[in-house]
Amino acid sequence: MVVKFMDKKTIPNDTFGRTLQINLFGGSHTSEIGIEIRGLPSQLSIDKERIQHELNRRRPGQNNITTGRKEADLFQITSGLHLGKTTGEPLTITIPNIDTKSKDYSQFKTIPRPSHVDYPARLRYGDTIDLRGSGRFSGRMTAPLVAAGAIARQILHQQQIEIAAYASQIGNIHDPTEYTVSSIRQNVDSNLIRTVDAEFAHQMENLVKTVQKEKDSIGGVVSVRIEGFPAGLGDPWFHSLESDIAAAIMSIPGVRGIEFGTGFAAASMRGSDHNDPFVWQNGKITTKTNHCGGIIGGISIGTPITFQVAVKPTASIGKIQHTLNLETQSEVPLEIIGRHDPCIVPRIVVVLEAIVGLVLLDVLYSHS
Amino acid sequence: MVVKFMDKKTIPNDTFGRTLQINLFGGSHTSEIGIEIRGLPSQLSIDKERIQHELNRRRPGQNNITTGRKEADLFQITSGLHLGKTTGEPLTITIPNIDTKSKDYSQFKTIPRPSHVDYPARLRYGDTIDLRGSGRFSGRMTAPLVAAGAIARQILHQQQIEIAAYASQIGNIHDPTEYTVSSIRQNVDSNLIRTVDAEFAHQMENLVKTVQKEKDSIGGVVSVRIEGFPAGLGDPWFHSLESDIAAAIMSIPGVRGIEFGTGFAAASMRGSDHNDPFVWQNGKITTKTNHCGGIIGGISIGTPITFQVAVKPTASIGKIQHTLNLETQSEVPLEIIGRHDPCIVPRIVVVLEAIVGLVLLDVLYSHS
Amino acid sequence: MVVKFMDKKTIPNDTFGRTLQINLFGGSHTSEIGIEIRGLPSQLSIDKERIQHELNRRRPGQNNITTGRKEADLFQITSGLHLGKTTGEPLTITIPNIDTKSKDYSQFKTIPRPSHVDYPARLRYGDTIDLRGSGRFSGRMTAPLVAAGAIARQILHQQQIEIAAYASQIGNIHDPTEYTVSSIRQNVDSNLIRTVDAEFAHQMENLVKTVQKEKDSIGGVVSVRIEGFPAGLGDPWFHSLESDIAAAIMSIPGVRGIEFGTGFAAASMRGSDHNDPFVWQNGKITTKTNHCGGIIGGISIGTPITFQVAVKPTASIGKIQHTLNLETQSEVPLEIIGRHDPCIVPRIVVVLEAIVGLVLLDVLYSHS
Amino acid sequence: MVVKFMDKKTIPNDTFGRTLQINLFGGSHTSEIGIEIRGLPSQLSIDKERIQHELNRRRPGQNNITTGRKEADLFQITSGLHLGKTTGEPLTITIPNIDTKSKDYSQFKTIPRPSHVDYPARLRYGDTIDLRGSGRFSGRMTAPLVAAGAIARQILHQQQIEIAAYASQIGNIHDPTEYTVSSIRQNVDSNLIRTVDAEFAHQMENLVKTVQKEKDSIGGVVSVRIEGFPAGLGDPWFHSLESDIAAAIMSIPGVRGIEFGTGFAAASMRGSDHNDPFVWQNGKITTKTNHCGGIIGGISIGTPITFQVAVKPTASIGKIQHTLNLETQSEVPLEIIGRHDPCIVPRIVVVLEAIVGLVLLDVLYSHS
Repeated sequence: MVVKFMDKKTIPNDTFGRTLQINLFGGSHTSEIGIEIRGLPSQLSIDKERIQHELNRRRPGQNNITTGRKEADLFQITSGLHLGKTTGEPLTITIPNIDTKSKDYSQFKTIPRPSHVDYPARLRYGDTIDLRGSGRFSGRMTAPLVAAGAIARQILHQQQIEIAAYASQIGNIHDPTEYTVSSIRQNVDSNLIRTVDAEFAHQMENLVKTVQKEKDSIGGVVSVRIEGFPAGLGDPWFHSLESDIAAAIMSIPGVRGIEFGTGFAAASMRGSDHNDPFVWQNGKITTKTNHCGGIIGGISIGTPITFQVAVKPTASIGKIQHTLNLETQSEVPLEIIGRHDPCIVPRIVVVLEAIVGLVLLDVLYSHS
Repeated sequence: MVVKFMDKKTIPNDTFGRTLQINLFGGSHTSEIGIEIRGLPSQLSIDKERIQHELNRRRPGQNNITTGRKEADLFQITSGLHLGKTTGEPLTITIPNIDTKSKDYSQFKTIPRPSHVDYPARLRYGDTIDLRGSGRFSGRMTAPLVAAGAIARQILHQQQIEIAAYASQIGNIHDPTEYTVSSIRQNVDSNLIRTVDAEFAHQMENLVKTVQKEKDSIGGVVSVRIEGFPAGLGDPWFHSLESDIAAAIMSIPGVRGIEFGTGFAAASMRGSDHNDPFVWQNGKITTKTNHCGGIIGGISIGTPITFQVAVKPTASIGKIQHTLNLETQSEVPLEIIGRHDPCIVPRIVVVLEAIVGLVLLDVLYSHS
Repeated sequence: MVVKFMDKKTIPNDTFGRTLQINLFGGSHTSEIGIEIRGLPSQLSIDKERIQHELNRRRPGQNNITTGRKEADLFQITSGLHLGKTTGEPLTITIPNIDTKSKDYSQFKTIPRPSHVDYPARLRYGDTIDLRGSGRFSGRMTAPLVAAGAIARQILHQQQIEIAAYASQIGNIHDPTEYTVSSIRQNVDSNLIRTVDAEFAHQMENLVKTVQKEKDSIGGVVSVRIEGFPAGLGDPWFHSLESDIAAAIMSIPGVRGIEFGTGFAAASMRGSDHNDPFVWQNGKITTKTNHCGGIIGGISIGTPITFQVAVKPTASIGKIQHTLNLETQSEVPLEIIGRHDPCIVPRIVVVLEAIVGLVLLDVLYSHS
Repeated sequence: MVVKFMDKKTIPNDTFGRTLQINLFGGSHTSEIGIEIRGLPSQLSIDKERIQHELNRRRPGQNNITTGRKEADLFQITSGLHLGKTTGEPLTITIPNIDTKSKDYSQFKTIPRPSHVDYPARLRYGDTIDLRGSGRFSGRMTAPLVAAGAIARQILHQQQIEIAAYASQIGNIHDPTEYTVSSIRQNVDSNLIRTVDAEFAHQMENLVKTVQKEKDSIGGVVSVRIEGFPAGLGDPWFHSLESDIAAAIMSIPGVRGIEFGTGFAAASMRGSDHNDPFVWQNGKITTKTNHCGGIIGGISIGTPITFQVAVKPTASIGKIQHTLNLETQSEVPLEIIGRHDPCIVPRIVVVLEAIVGLVLLDVLYSHS
């Protein structure tokens, strides 16, 4: 082999969160995957059905535009919960991996799939890395994240903090409307795309199905909206709300960018237009516009927190591509067999809601 | 006062970095500001002139499109350096604050400036917060960041890792060309905007001066490019390279979004176009295209790391705006006196190069 | 109930280690207990038999002076190991809990056992805490620690770093000899007490059996010796070697004190006696005496690291004691039913070797 | 030079605390030394006189049994305090170094002083380390610790949490009495030793003066007592109260051991004697005895927290010793010139009170 995959000596801390802390464990084809959540207070009731509901929303095989892997995603809470209530100790959620095809993944060591982790993961961890089904890099790891997020969102919900996401763009079909959490919730699960407007849903579905027929994939944008988050939370500098949210969001495979409020469009605006004047409304301070996306100086101001997330087209496509044979150093054609999501946006919607829940609860606990 | 600014009890950890760790201290009008850098190895030579050079590039008052505050920004390294070499102990850099106008800032407590920290900072820290000159929220805090970044970049430079940024958009004037580090460096300091192309520089300068005359401000986009960063660094999930970089970038005041590689444009692309085929070039693996911006699965692949950063128009404008008087609950007109940067993009260019240097060195040390 | 057990809101980070990080999960009567180890490099071979060997040394029911709980302690590595080698990802070890008696523990809420966690654990976590079998406070949690420590010690062993511990005191029977790692290893498992000298073993065993017959318990001291740890590791101040070791050791239930080298006896010594003169031996720097226990200024000097650990007598005794009924506020007699270790020193020996292994490997990786 | 002092690549995180976090900076002969405290809430009044009072208690040159270095130890709070109140931002305290003798310390590189950091510090950080006056390893660094501790103790005091320490043993003169905080405070500053009983003070002073005349030094024990610390704070395992306290205490130069409550004496006790029966007293739960030193299962139980700390005799003695010349590899006689504390116990008393204050406030904030 011309390319040598060596080990790196130190593997740094990969915990997420300051007060509410999470760690993922397992991989695509290990016996189970899971998440450890530390920092949950004791005496909280946990609604397991809400967790399963969110897992079902994320689940593979839920319809014919998602991957065919069959996973019931029945989770277990193996510690930290007693008689339905949190104990205040680390809470561990595990989900078994059942449909782990015995397919040979070792070919991808020699012939790495384009825009896939086959090559960089080996560079990073060396030859011993378990890359069956993309191992720990697999989107499958978002299942425990979704379960943990469902717990966080239950707790936020009790404080009237609500998070909702939807597909606002698929390919070049873009719905520019800003929806409230309530409109998003009413509509997002009524279509395969997880968008809000029925007409846009129709167009987007058609696009995804066309792309799927062509053994190709397509990208999109997810819009996220948070209502009810208290004003005055977050910090300047390295734990600004935007920093904490962006770090979490950018950790989700397939995400390529994030913008808050008016985002990149602010680049062509003037201050006199972009500034959000403070106004008095229903006995509370708010702002006339919300170009800032609910955050100024890293701190929430009480208006809805809004951001948009760019999602790339799935790297795994059936269409013939070209890549490199690392042994022969020659370019080779590659046809990836198997069913893949032609567009991961609908499933990313569920994952983003979850991880944002974890971030916001961490911020809340960190400032209490 | 109708609005009550209370304290929050716990103020969480605001350290940045895992192995190379930084903390900022001081504020706009304290006697000095500074940064503490922990995790630097011993026995490194530090070139103080490079630090001063970068501080001068960021400095206020350097030309007539930056704020008029006069600061020589002469820094001191008060510990961690001995006979020109790092000792391996915490390295502390301090910069005195000299031009701290005794202007009255307390008015902004009652009449908060739109899109400014006057209101959220008090919500967060309560009445005792020192908000003279925006206190710790001030862009002035980027001076020690730039000094620290200059140290990090010296170390990276010894390993042929180079970072360069430039203004690729001001208002709606956009230069779509992708430049190499070397072309950026040759041109970026030859114009007030810190853009690369002379013709674009001319147009952008005119726009900024027009906006300035109108007592308004304008936003823009900064493009960042890193060459020479080794393949195989970064991690999946919470410390993906994108997460670490995004967290750092989103902590800089005025930044509203970040996108890696093709970024938001990937939303309308197909997988067959967006995937970057691996190819063999000059005895090394690389990719034909670089839509991924040099990062796959959170890990560097050895191609240039590229990302774009959205910068909002400066919130402080001379033009009359409307805001709220928190005592009377009535809307009031507001005219902010004093000279402000009509566009912070040229100075943000310098700051982003610095903070990216700190992030990359942290990643390097974390994986060594 | 007169005493109210409320919840505490924030539960802080309980991760141990800076580079090699561990977290425990589960409790005495949950379905499984486990440990997550983060920071292990990839490509290390793991000898599972060594792990099982150490688990067997710690195991309950191994002889008639340990608790009668029957646990095979067969462990599983559910992630982080692939084809016998570490992958560089989080390594998760789980051990099922089998012999979880359905005994009623709720009585101890009203009538807390003296010097037991029944009372403080509820004060800390509130009523929802799972205290069956003392829950997460149980000595049972040392099983995953021992498993993790066995991995750490394999890695240290490859660098000729060896750790050995033994009972140097039981009650007032004290063996003042300092033994080498090799003598400790040759003898420590040949007697129930895990002491070195056969004659002392005999006396100590007799004492433990006498105490056991009287339904009482007895304390002791464990001496720990580390050979081969490289000079020049550790830091001044908050991560001095002594700080890191002491923090780990003091986290083990039943430990009441730690002293390094000459320890408390140094209090009555003069500097001229206590100072360890540097001498040259076999081409290396060493010291004539080792009063410092191998550590100066928080940093290893290459001589054996030695410390002693005080272990209290087991709190669970069959003998009738007095305690409080929290409902009636009256003193009540208490007879604790069931078999308990009359002396936990022999099992603590195994646990201390394990946790010291984890600390030293963390130090090694942190300074690499 | 036969011995080569190389650098170590990674210098790990040396922050102390989870919620209230501190970092030290500077060294014995840098222009200033200081501490950064993060995690202090906003709106707290700080009494600067209390800080100076504690600094004066620790100060060198305060009497003829302390080192002759002349330092006024006038501190400055350079950020985090505004109009006498904390702002909630990082609080930075600096103390100038004035009396930095230009003496040549480089000789100690070749001829390391026994039981001093001359040798291990160079092994750890390499040749570039600034070891003038022992650099960052110097006891001088305890000055900013004492200042920070004085702030922590003011905050604890408002919640009726009081910490007091005293010398309970010097050489083999040992006062076995357990004193309350109030008796300690009444007496501790009335004698040079900082012990409680006048007769013991007299004996101990005589011993120290004798030792001083002989150009030697002597060790001792400091007893620490905390009253008013709320029950129910602390955690099992890695952040047990004992772990947090021990880690802090063991970071202070000269400390060789720590024991809680009955400590090492528990080794020879039976459970039936060592267990602390719960009793009802003045409407509160308490224990008849306090062998546990106020902590069970890592958690406070509301009784006084007590522990003892072993302090070694000062390594710097005037008496002729032997050490090694690293260049010639031969043993050489060494006479250390200059005045040194013949016994550091009286100054350690002040330092321990300070650092315990920082630990307890961190625990308090972490559980709020």
